[in-house]
Amino acid sequence: MRPRPVTLGDVAREAGVSRSTASEALSGRGRMTESTRLAVRDTAVRLGYRPNALAQSLRTGRTGAIALHHQHAADSFSSQYFREFVAGAMDVTSARDHDLTLLASDPTTPRATLPRVDGVIIADPIADDVRALELLTSGIPVVAGERYPPGMPTSPVVGVHHEQALRDVLDHVHGLGVRRPALVGPDAHSGWGVVLRETVDDWSAERGLVTAHRTIAFASGFTTSHEDLVGELLDAEPGVDLLLVPSEAVALGAIAALRARSSEPGRDVLVVSCADAQMLGLTDPPVTAIDLGPRALGAACARALLSVVEDDAELPPLTLIPATLSLRASTELRASTAGGASTELPGSTEPRRSADLRRDAVRA
Amino acid sequence: MRPRPVTLGDVAREAGVSRSTASEALSGRGRMTESTRLAVRDTAVRLGYRPNALAQSLRTGRTGAIALHHQHAADSFSSQYFREFVAGAMDVTSARDHDLTLLASDPTTPRATLPRVDGVIIADPIADDVRALELLTSGIPVVAGERYPPGMPTSPVVGVHHEQALRDVLDHVHGLGVRRPALVGPDAHSGWGVVLRETVDDWSAERGLVTAHRTIAFASGFTTSHEDLVGELLDAEPGVDLLLVPSEAVALGAIAALRARSSEPGRDVLVVSCADAQMLGLTDPPVTAIDLGPRALGAACARALLSVVEDDAELPPLTLIPATLSLRASTELRASTAGGASTELPGSTEPRRSADLRRDAVRA
Repeated sequence: MRPRPVTLGDVAREAGVSRSTASEALSGRGRMTESTRLAVRDTAVRLGYRPNALAQSLRTGRTGAIALHHQHAADSFSSQYFREFVAGAMDVTSARDHDLTLLASDPTTPRATLPRVDGVIIADPIADDVRALELLTSGIPVVAGERYPPGMPTSPVVGVHHEQALRDVLDHVHGLGVRRPALVGPDAHSGWGVVLRETVDDWSAERGLVTAHRTIAFASGFTTSHEDLVGELLDAEPGVDLLLVPSEAVALGAIAALRARSSEPGRDVLVVSCADAQMLGLTDPPVTAIDLGPRALGAACARALLSVVEDDAELPPLTLIPATLSLRASTELRASTAGGASTELPGSTEPRRSADLRRDAVRA
Repeated sequence: MRPRPVTLGDVAREAGVSRSTASEALSGRGRMTESTRLAVRDTAVRLGYRPNALAQSLRTGRTGAIALHHQHAADSFSSQYFREFVAGAMDVTSARDHDLTLLASDPTTPRATLPRVDGVIIADPIADDVRALELLTSGIPVVAGERYPPGMPTSPVVGVHHEQALRDVLDHVHGLGVRRPALVGPDAHSGWGVVLRETVDDWSAERGLVTAHRTIAFASGFTTSHEDLVGELLDAEPGVDLLLVPSEAVALGAIAALRARSSEPGRDVLVVSCADAQMLGLTDPPVTAIDLGPRALGAACARALLSVVEDDAELPPLTLIPATLSLRASTELRASTAGGASTELPGSTEPRRSADLRRDAVRA
C-alpha cells in the first residue's frame, strides 16, 4: 500500500507550530526566530514533506527565471565540468527566453529569503548542504543534476548513465588482462560516489574479482595528497592492476605514485578517470576517461525543469543520459605492446571496440 | 550651465502618454500595446532619461540578486573571456551572499518583463542591443563592463585600461623596428573597438606614423574569413610590419595570410592580439597578447554594482583596471634574431622590458 503523502499539517503538528507558521517557515516569509524556522525545516526534511509545486506556482506567478544551485558555486566555476554544465543550462534557458540565476552557496547557513525563480536545478546534490535541503522543502520545483546521496529528500533526477559507461570501460580493460581493480572514489556524500562504488563492486562480483577501495571527500575539492593516498593503496594492495580515479588531480597523483614505484602507468597498471577533462589529453601518459558530457547534462536538466514549470510535466524519478569513453594511452599502451604484461589477454592484443568507445591521443 | 535632468514628465509629454503610462512602460509593468511600450522606451533613450535608481529600489525592495546581461549570452559562454568574466562576478556575489542572474539575451526583441534584480552588469555594451537599452531606461542600477559605444545612453563603467596596455606593447614593438602598424579591429558598435582605434591612431600620430585599418563586426563573433581579410590588407599595404588583431581566431588568420605570402610571423611582420586566450600560447608561433584579466574585471564590476545597491555609492563615470602583456614569439622572434629584418632597431636587440611586460612561451 502506498503511504499517505506527508501534509503541511503533519509538519506543523510534529514541529509544534501553527499551520501558517509552518507554511511561512518553509517559504522563507513571515517573522519568526531563526531557530523556529530551522526546526520546521528539519521536521519537513525528516518527514519527507513535499509541498504541492503546482499550487505554489499558481500562488506566486512566474518570474521567467530558473536557478542553478551548487554547494560550492563560486569555487566550482573554476572546474571545467561546472562551467560546461552552466553553459548547457544557459543554451536552453536563453533559447526559451528565461534567465538563469546562479544561486549564492553556503552549505552551512540558510538563505535570508528564497530565490524568486520558477524552479531550481540542484547540481551534484550533497547530503549535508542546508541550502539544498531548504530548496527541496520550499515548494519550488526542483530537478537534480545527478543522483541524490542516501538519506536526503529527493526530486526528479537527470543524471549520467555512469553504470553503463563504467561497465564499458571495465569490460574493455578486462579484455586487456585487468583482474584487480581499485576505485579511489568520492565518498557517500555524493550520489555519484555511491553509483561508482556499487557498479564496480557488482561488476567485480559477477567475475569473481574483488575491488580495492579508497574514498576521498567529494565536497573537499579532492584536496588530500593524491599521490600519498594512491601510494598507500598500491603498497597495501600490491596486486592492483587498474586505478579508477574521480578527477584529473587524482589521475596526476596516480601517475606520480606509480612512477615512484617503478610501475609504468598504462602498461603495468592502467589508469582511468571517471570524469574527463581537457587536461587528461595532455598528461604523460594521456589518461583514458569517461566523458560525462556536462554541457548536454546541463541542457537536459534545464529542459526537464522548464517542462515542469511551463507544462506541468510529470517527470520520472530518474532520467539517464549516455556518456562516452575517451580511450588514451593510460589504458592503451598495454593494448599496443605485443608480449606485454597482459598474459591473460584474449587472442588479439587489439582492444575490444564498441560504438561507445572513442579513441584519441593514443601514443603507441 | 548644467542642463536640467530629463524627467519622467518630459518623456511622457514627448511620447504623448500619461505620466503613469510612461512609468509603467519603462518598468515593464502595466497593460499597454507593445508599440506604446516601445515608443515610450525609444523616447526615453532619445532624451537621455535616467530614472532615480534610489527611489526605484526603495519602491521595489531588495531581491538579493544582481544580473549580468550580454548581447549574446548563450553563445558567449563558449568564449574563455566571458566564462572568466562570469566567474569573477560570481566570486564577488557568492562571497556577499547574492545570486547572479544570467539574463536571456536577444538583441532585437524586448523582454516580456524586467528582471527581478537589484542591479545589472552590462558586459560589452553594443549600440543596437534593445535589451541593453531597456535595462538602461528601467531604473534598475546599471554598471557596464567595458565602455559604451558612441550614441548609446550610459551608466558608470568599469573597464580595462586598454590605452595603457596597447601603448606598452606599441612602444615595445617600436623598439623592435615597427614603423607601419595595422589594426584589424572591432567596429564602432563596441566601445572597445573605438578605444583601440583611437589609441593606435594617437600613438602613431605622435611618432609621425600612419596606421592601416580594417574593421570586423564585433557582434558577429568575427566570422568573416580572417585569412582573406588580413591577406587583402597585406596586399594593399605592403609596408605593414605589425598586425594588431582582436582575437585568437583573427590571429590564426593573420599567421596563415603571412605564411601564404612567404612572410614569417614574428620576424618579418609582428602579430599582437588585443585580447589574450589560452590558445595563443599554443599556436605556431605563440602570439603576444594583452591579457585583459576578465576574471578581475567581472569581480570589479560586481563590487562596483553592489556598492551602489547596498551603500548607495556614487560611482565615477569611468573606472579603469590595468591589463598585462604576455610577450610571445610573434613579436619576440625578431628580438632574438641578430641581424634580422629590423634595420632600424636601437643599439640592443634585446626588447625593452617594463614591469608590465610578462614573458612566456617565447621560442627563440
